[in-house]
Amino acid sequence: MTSFSSIAARLEEQAIELPSWAFGNSGTRFKVFGTPGTPRTPEEKIADAAQVNKYTALSPTVALHIPWDKVDDYTALRTFANDHGVDLGTVNSNTFQDDDYKFGSLTHVDPTIRQKAIDHHFECIDVMDQTGSRDLKIWLADGSNYPGQADIRGRQDRLADSLQKIYDCLGDEQRMVLEYKFFEPAFYHMDVPDWGTSYAQVAALGERALVCLDTGHHAPGTNIEFIVMQLLRLGKLGSFDFNSRFYADDDLIVGAADPFQLFRILYEVVRGGGYGADSGVAFMLDQCHNVEDKVPGQMRSVLNVQEMTARALLVDSDALTAAQDAGDVLGANGILMDAFYTDVRADLAAWRESRGLPADPMAAYAASGYQQKIAEERVGGVQAGWGA
Amino acid sequence: MTSFSSIAARLEEQAIELPSWAFGNSGTRFKVFGTPGTPRTPEEKIADAAQVNKYTALSPTVALHIPWDKVDDYTALRTFANDHGVDLGTVNSNTFQDDDYKFGSLTHVDPTIRQKAIDHHFECIDVMDQTGSRDLKIWLADGSNYPGQADIRGRQDRLADSLQKIYDCLGDEQRMVLEYKFFEPAFYHMDVPDWGTSYAQVAALGERALVCLDTGHHAPGTNIEFIVMQLLRLGKLGSFDFNSRFYADDDLIVGAADPFQLFRILYEVVRGGGYGADSGVAFMLDQCHNVEDKVPGQMRSVLNVQEMTARALLVDSDALTAAQDAGDVLGANGILMDAFYTDVRADLAAWRESRGLPADPMAAYAASGYQQKIAEERVGGVQAGWGA
Amino acid sequence: MTSFSSIAARLEEQAIELPSWAFGNSGTRFKVFGTPGTPRTPEEKIADAAQVNKYTALSPTVALHIPWDKVDDYTALRTFANDHGVDLGTVNSNTFQDDDYKFGSLTHVDPTIRQKAIDHHFECIDVMDQTGSRDLKIWLADGSNYPGQADIRGRQDRLADSLQKIYDCLGDEQRMVLEYKFFEPAFYHMDVPDWGTSYAQVAALGERALVCLDTGHHAPGTNIEFIVMQLLRLGKLGSFDFNSRFYADDDLIVGAADPFQLFRILYEVVRGGGYGADSGVAFMLDQCHNVEDKVPGQMRSVLNVQEMTARALLVDSDALTAAQDAGDVLGANGILMDAFYTDVRADLAAWRESRGLPADPMAAYAASGYQQKIAEERVGGVQAGWGA
Amino acid sequence: MTSFSSIAARLEEQAIELPSWAFGNSGTRFKVFGTPGTPRTPEEKIADAAQVNKYTALSPTVALHIPWDKVDDYTALRTFANDHGVDLGTVNSNTFQDDDYKFGSLTHVDPTIRQKAIDHHFECIDVMDQTGSRDLKIWLADGSNYPGQADIRGRQDRLADSLQKIYDCLGDEQRMVLEYKFFEPAFYHMDVPDWGTSYAQVAALGERALVCLDTGHHAPGTNIEFIVMQLLRLGKLGSFDFNSRFYADDDLIVGAADPFQLFRILYEVVRGGGYGADSGVAFMLDQCHNVEDKVPGQMRSVLNVQEMTARALLVDSDALTAAQDAGDVLGANGILMDAFYTDVRADLAAWRESRGLPADPMAAYAASGYQQKIAEERVGGVQAGWGA
Repeated sequence: MTSFSSIAARLEEQAIELPSWAFGNSGTRFKVFGTPGTPRTPEEKIADAAQVNKYTALSPTVALHIPWDKVDDYTALRTFANDHGVDLGTVNSNTFQDDDYKFGSLTHVDPTIRQKAIDHHFECIDVMDQTGSRDLKIWLADGSNYPGQADIRGRQDRLADSLQKIYDCLGDEQRMVLEYKFFEPAFYHMDVPDWGTSYAQVAALGERALVCLDTGHHAPGTNIEFIVMQLLRLGKLGSFDFNSRFYADDDLIVGAADPFQLFRILYEVVRGGGYGADSGVAFMLDQCHNVEDKVPGQMRSVLNVQEMTARALLVDSDALTAAQDAGDVLGANGILMDAFYTDVRADLAAWRESRGLPADPMAAYAASGYQQKIAEERVGGVQAGWGA
Repeated sequence: MTSFSSIAARLEEQAIELPSWAFGNSGTRFKVFGTPGTPRTPEEKIADAAQVNKYTALSPTVALHIPWDKVDDYTALRTFANDHGVDLGTVNSNTFQDDDYKFGSLTHVDPTIRQKAIDHHFECIDVMDQTGSRDLKIWLADGSNYPGQADIRGRQDRLADSLQKIYDCLGDEQRMVLEYKFFEPAFYHMDVPDWGTSYAQVAALGERALVCLDTGHHAPGTNIEFIVMQLLRLGKLGSFDFNSRFYADDDLIVGAADPFQLFRILYEVVRGGGYGADSGVAFMLDQCHNVEDKVPGQMRSVLNVQEMTARALLVDSDALTAAQDAGDVLGANGILMDAFYTDVRADLAAWRESRGLPADPMAAYAASGYQQKIAEERVGGVQAGWGA
Repeated sequence: MTSFSSIAARLEEQAIELPSWAFGNSGTRFKVFGTPGTPRTPEEKIADAAQVNKYTALSPTVALHIPWDKVDDYTALRTFANDHGVDLGTVNSNTFQDDDYKFGSLTHVDPTIRQKAIDHHFECIDVMDQTGSRDLKIWLADGSNYPGQADIRGRQDRLADSLQKIYDCLGDEQRMVLEYKFFEPAFYHMDVPDWGTSYAQVAALGERALVCLDTGHHAPGTNIEFIVMQLLRLGKLGSFDFNSRFYADDDLIVGAADPFQLFRILYEVVRGGGYGADSGVAFMLDQCHNVEDKVPGQMRSVLNVQEMTARALLVDSDALTAAQDAGDVLGANGILMDAFYTDVRADLAAWRESRGLPADPMAAYAASGYQQKIAEERVGGVQAGWGA
Repeated sequence: MTSFSSIAARLEEQAIELPSWAFGNSGTRFKVFGTPGTPRTPEEKIADAAQVNKYTALSPTVALHIPWDKVDDYTALRTFANDHGVDLGTVNSNTFQDDDYKFGSLTHVDPTIRQKAIDHHFECIDVMDQTGSRDLKIWLADGSNYPGQADIRGRQDRLADSLQKIYDCLGDEQRMVLEYKFFEPAFYHMDVPDWGTSYAQVAALGERALVCLDTGHHAPGTNIEFIVMQLLRLGKLGSFDFNSRFYADDDLIVGAADPFQLFRILYEVVRGGGYGADSGVAFMLDQCHNVEDKVPGQMRSVLNVQEMTARALLVDSDALTAAQDAGDVLGANGILMDAFYTDVRADLAAWRESRGLPADPMAAYAASGYQQKIAEERVGGVQAGWGA
């Protein structure tokens, strides 16, 4: 197997964007439990996100959600972020929390509401111009709950038209990534339910339109690493939303439900050229810490991605190819499993220390007193986002 | 096939309880859309529920949810209901919207919180004593999101203990029904995830403890009519929560997603002795009308159940048995399908008119002006329940 | 709602191809149960298929499977078919029953085996030239059972290369349809697991390469009518393999498991321009009659498709569009359901009689004595296919 | 975390029964690929199974399948096994490969066929008396493919009656374990589809009737370790059939698809008292090595179970309980994951060597030349079982 020292340099390339909204309270339709210290402003979210990067050096950017993270002065927000050691990243649009969007946004049958949704994306592009963000991420809640409720073909055509208008407005260095989701919040049909639909839509737009793969947005049993491979092969994998799930879009900590699946996904990322700064593939988390603390929840997540990336890098590709070519089923599987079963934690701790980071970021954060501090200081105010 | 006239009398026996909370706004974790005319008090919910019964004569009772439907004087509430032509039915407890229950209620590791949850059920039994309700329905959100988070065995033992304490407090004419759910709001384990667990728990309590089957609370592909058959066979089917789903616990209108499945379920209910006043099986709806109007949504639902019940009653049992015994696969299937494919709507319309009901309840309600009236009158106030 | 008389003419356009192999014995890995009268030759299969068409006028063509239906003289076979009132249709290749294909066929790492599989398709095209068939259908069992066993990216590239070679060999009036399948016989990855992959592969080939949609080849919960809509929109829906399932690729009689789903699929076919001789969409059955008789099993299937097509044609499109545009969720759903709940069986029986067909094809076939005749005559010999 | 040395002694207790049929060829309904060296007799299967035990000391017994392993002299067979260092174990009945069982065996509507199936179990008990086996394992293929085909309630009652007759025939030291399966080979309903049904049936029989849990026989997303916990709690977990799956009953090598799930299952086994000779829980494999070599496939499997058992034993239970009681979600999860992520392979290799076993059993077997030897010697003959 490949040695840890030989992959150490490649680990330097890893960057996992954090979503600002992960630091706010989230929950289910049944209940959102509150947590002391929840951020009340975009700045407080960025400050929390910066903590994750401070102890791990894995998350140099923070994604924004508009309008949850709307501010008067984005230049100031960016300066604030930079002062905390991070930068602003992907801008996420939101067309699912306005009453007008009850029956759709970019796909709505009413041109007025469609235009409102398109205009919102123009606003997001304005924000991107100010924040220096590269990616505009679009996730649509659009869909229907009952057969017959909607003309699913008409909606697809209107979606193409709306996306074209937004795409045409992007700057030359800007990209659009279109996320797909199997179901929820719509329960009969989603307008972008699968990678095939997202791919067909972005392929019609141009080379700066790409697919966003959220690891929790598939039907039960779906082989996600196959989709990763296929999108990389087609040159259309734009970004990841990482999380994990046992059932539906559970939005658990990435790697928590099925660490082996995360390993397989990262293995396909690495060998398909999707890893590293030049790859054009953005790594991001998108999780809901319903019952666990937010900052350590995010920290655990980036560490999980790092640990599995290290294992994926450890795979002895030459030996694997030889076994595959020889039809040695057990041998080839064994070579892959060797890397997965290797405990990289001690090596990673040493690697962290060599870079001036704490060996155990979770412990270091816990010892820092930050959690207690925000719990005391952040009293009053209302969370921005997730129902705000 | 059996003739409609021969089953008309049996249709008189049908009664489908409506949940008070179906008339309030519901939604997903992403957004709850508001509707003009949403009830602000238990009385307004009961008034809305009474509309469904007025036009269909199918829903003589309304289930309460405590504390959503908490009032000072339950006798007065019952009188109010009776004045509107309905009665109060099942009392549903709620242990999922209090911060104390973040890590469980009847299964919580902390005896203080367990006792609080048990006391809440004692309070529900007090309400039942005043409303004359027979059934206490328990649905638990208890579970965990991450492997290791909870001692799943300890929780099961504590559940047994808590249920025993509640069961012991029931009056001689009162029953407990324990609902199970595959997942949500917990995403790793639910303390009562399947019928087997609910059955094992209630079997340990005694004969007045029964299982509640919610049609949306199963794993993908589960044969629900088999469970209906089995629970009737074991004498443990206490009640139904009807709804439908394409994906998870979508809580759509019953029969909307898979009318044939509803037919098969009702067929097993009928032939297993679960139909009619003497059966001891309570029929109830439990749906979320996220995008459709509430009163007509409930009306559509009880009519769907009635239409499929009529079809189920139409099955020619003798011919079916003969074909089954002969190993005539296509013949037996054809006899069942004959009943399913029969369009009973005209016969049901005539049957309704013969009882002084409108032939088309949906149209009659729409023409009544009730919806406009409540939209105008019910301004201000806050919905009780679902996040209240 | 639209009247039956107004759709009667459109029903004339319906043609559903039968697979020759449906008349042979099939089963599961556990057991294949034998049936008296099972065909021993391609001619006997065609004779059986012709029975279905004789009583229903719905199945004018029979699909062949090579090598299961290999004969010395395809012109003679076609004449035989014509003499029985049917024609030969789609040619299906088979690269899953030869020991060489244990680790793949068109995707195999060994160029010799890949070429063998490509050559087999050339042979199929030769057969098509003789039978006058339009479509070459490719379903690949290629995949792997264990992570690491195969280079899934390399296989995708080799697949593209192999398909190109086959496509280049097609005549100007011939088409290729590429089927996808979620899983089985491979249990970790399939090389063509979803519509997105099939679409991406055929889009790279040219306009006479299209997708084949088998209704049983999806993940649990997949909205199949959405895929139908999308492929029609993209101009890439080539053909259907109809069957039904409760769990996996159960290959039950089409419409048996979820008739409402079949209705929804056919509704999207009709309104997306996929219905009728000019549509370019081929309808075919692909089922396994493991426990029921084969000829009546196929007959039941084409009748199910016809009944649901009639219902789909009955949908009042104008009213539906109006309700959809008005955001009338219950109204729009109700308009669709009106058509689904309409019992078209008596109208179809009358329509059949008006065309000189038996009102009840199943009964007419049963009374014909054909089944008894073949059971007596066809003694000895070995079934060709499914293990042959 | 617990140290390896402190758990070494407990690893001695591990015993995983091998199924004789795992050494024969298996496949899918599409194709069974042959392998050189496939056993032609029960003795050859036992000899192969003994190889697994020789290199791992993990599999001291071999399960038989009647009639696949029918011999004239079971005492001689047992002696043969003993001479090869193993003993005979569980006897598995087979009521799915006889034409009479097309529509059921123990549940069949025809009393003659039911009695034939019951008699077959009496024969199995006779075999057990001769082999000294403790457990009679019953897996039923009984079910139906189409709604209406069968009276699912009548079948359940007949099942109870048939099982009672078999149970009554067991010796005082003998047990019955009843396996359940979600679907396949029946595609509408299975007579024993879930743990609840198996539990209800065996609970009615007596204390020596128990449930067999096959890890591949559940609906998608089912939390299997919960069922393990529940059955142990109810005193009804009799045995395991280990394998793994990505989709359905794929019967892959245990631990191959989701090693973390295997770890969680074994953790619940250990802490629920299901581990070790005195537990009364039998561990067995039940897999199909469709594309990989059989002997190393079984060896890989028992090693996977051992590795995950070691990890499960390593969990620091005290620390875990403390974190759980404190509501420390991330802490508790982290303690569990610590054990899972620990690479026990070097410790296990050393432990093996200390017992006179090869450090790397897979390599030792490969070097032994056994595979080549059987490939050369075993020419001709027909495999017994899986279609024989």
